[in-house]
Amino acid sequence: AAHGARKMEDYGRFLALLASALLVGFVSVILSLVWVFHYREGLSWDGSPGEFNWHPVLVITGFVFIQGIAIIVYRLPWTWKCSKLLMKFIHAGLNTIAMILAIVSMVAVFEFHNAKNIPNMYSLHSWIGLTAVIFYSLQLLLGFVVFLLPFAPAHLRVVLMPIHVYSGLTIFATVIATALMGITEKLIFSLKNPAYSESPPEATLVNCLGLLLVIFGSLILWMASRPHWKRPPAENAKVLRPVAATPEGTEVESTMTNSSNADKSDLRINTEAARKQNIKFDEAGQRSTM
Amino acid sequence: AAHGARKMEDYGRFLALLASALLVGFVSVILSLVWVFHYREGLSWDGSPGEFNWHPVLVITGFVFIQGIAIIVYRLPWTWKCSKLLMKFIHAGLNTIAMILAIVSMVAVFEFHNAKNIPNMYSLHSWIGLTAVIFYSLQLLLGFVVFLLPFAPAHLRVVLMPIHVYSGLTIFATVIATALMGITEKLIFSLKNPAYSESPPEATLVNCLGLLLVIFGSLILWMASRPHWKRPPAENAKVLRPVAATPEGTEVESTMTNSSNADKSDLRINTEAARKQNIKFDEAGQRSTM
Repeated sequence: AAHGARKMEDYGRFLALLASALLVGFVSVILSLVWVFHYREGLSWDGSPGEFNWHPVLVITGFVFIQGIAIIVYRLPWTWKCSKLLMKFIHAGLNTIAMILAIVSMVAVFEFHNAKNIPNMYSLHSWIGLTAVIFYSLQLLLGFVVFLLPFAPAHLRVVLMPIHVYSGLTIFATVIATALMGITEKLIFSLKNPAYSESPPEATLVNCLGLLLVIFGSLILWMASRPHWKRPPAENAKVLRPVAATPEGTEVESTMTNSSNADKSDLRINTEAARKQNIKFDEAGQRSTM
Repeated sequence: AAHGARKMEDYGRFLALLASALLVGFVSVILSLVWVFHYREGLSWDGSPGEFNWHPVLVITGFVFIQGIAIIVYRLPWTWKCSKLLMKFIHAGLNTIAMILAIVSMVAVFEFHNAKNIPNMYSLHSWIGLTAVIFYSLQLLLGFVVFLLPFAPAHLRVVLMPIHVYSGLTIFATVIATALMGITEKLIFSLKNPAYSESPPEATLVNCLGLLLVIFGSLILWMASRPHWKRPPAENAKVLRPVAATPEGTEVESTMTNSSNADKSDLRINTEAARKQNIKFDEAGQRSTM
């Protein structure tokens, strides 16, 4: 009973953090819209500043908010009764949406720059931002080939999972850092008379937006790095196939203590038949989330 | 033998990453000096731009490089034969040096702003930077009281260690993000004719410095988050005091799978006598690092 109460309390803590992250992310998107509609030129697609304004809106909506949700989607307790494959599709799908929005947001800036004869790719913001988009796309491609397609050997998945997790979190943090640089640039360039240094209301609003992005990132990183909030491994597979691991299983597993339980279940299920069986069991599972 | 070869290979990988981090950090400090001496006004302490220039130099040297080393100092295999208490002093000492340099670097900016009648604390860079310094100081104070002074109960240390680790890494990442914003601001403000957008050599050099800070941060975060590179728990304490854990030991331990082994040994050693005995055993230990 004490164990159950503790689990319940822990579940409540997860929900509170999730609600906070959703609220902070949602308010960030709203503030980006207030920024471009109330203080700037609104949204358009004609080479004008209104086209540039898609850049912050799409980055904050897609590359920050949606990416953040994609990162923690395996940790939502009510998804643990869904099949692992379904959750992989949702994870990959959200990241694909985020990637597309990030690319469109870059196109908006390039078109705006070209229309106004402003050089492209001179700033540290642009260097790190483009690098982040390239690494993000590679991460998505590699994740799709290794973890979603059924061809990669279990051994490879086990070796790559800690790298996938680390890269994902590091790219996410880098994207937020790049957004903060972008906010800094834009406020300096666009606030003249009163200047940024005179703290007009727009500067205060957008500084608050920057702070919210840091808080959002911190909440997502906390939720994503608590080991007890991981999706549990597929128990059925373990019971049914206790010696199904490859001979290298044990030694490989020792290098990935920190990685997702996903690997452990993947390790045990290395034939397509076992995978299907496991999906069926997962779907049938009535595991409580509390 | 195969196990030994694998450990040796892993040790080599750690050394290669450590050497890379030291090199990238060292080159970053050099580039900050090239920036202020070759392209800017050098260093002075008289309210001139030369006083401002202490800001990037001290932040990169102290708040990025020294903080990064402080984060991974427990993971250096040749320190595992040193007492845990000695390593805590080194960790706290390096962080104290970093904090002092960060505070001096802020004083330099305030004095420069005041001498030139430039407003303080208007930018997102200043908001997040000051917040990071305040959180860093609180983290240092809390770490000193809870983990270095001998008064905190083992239970409290176990509960706070994952928060300490998470806060440390998050503050470190935030400091690097803040440095990138600072670089962006400074290049926009100081490059006129040719402007930042015309990519003069100074802009390219300092953009590269920004990239190196991201690479340095990524290397430190990778080294700090590999579970198999943790300082091993005090084996002697485990053997000598197998039932010394508090009654809550097991349940607490289940929430901290991801945190430092330090907690586990702390959990086992909750009298001052046992602590001293453990230090003695640690010092006597001939554990190989390979």
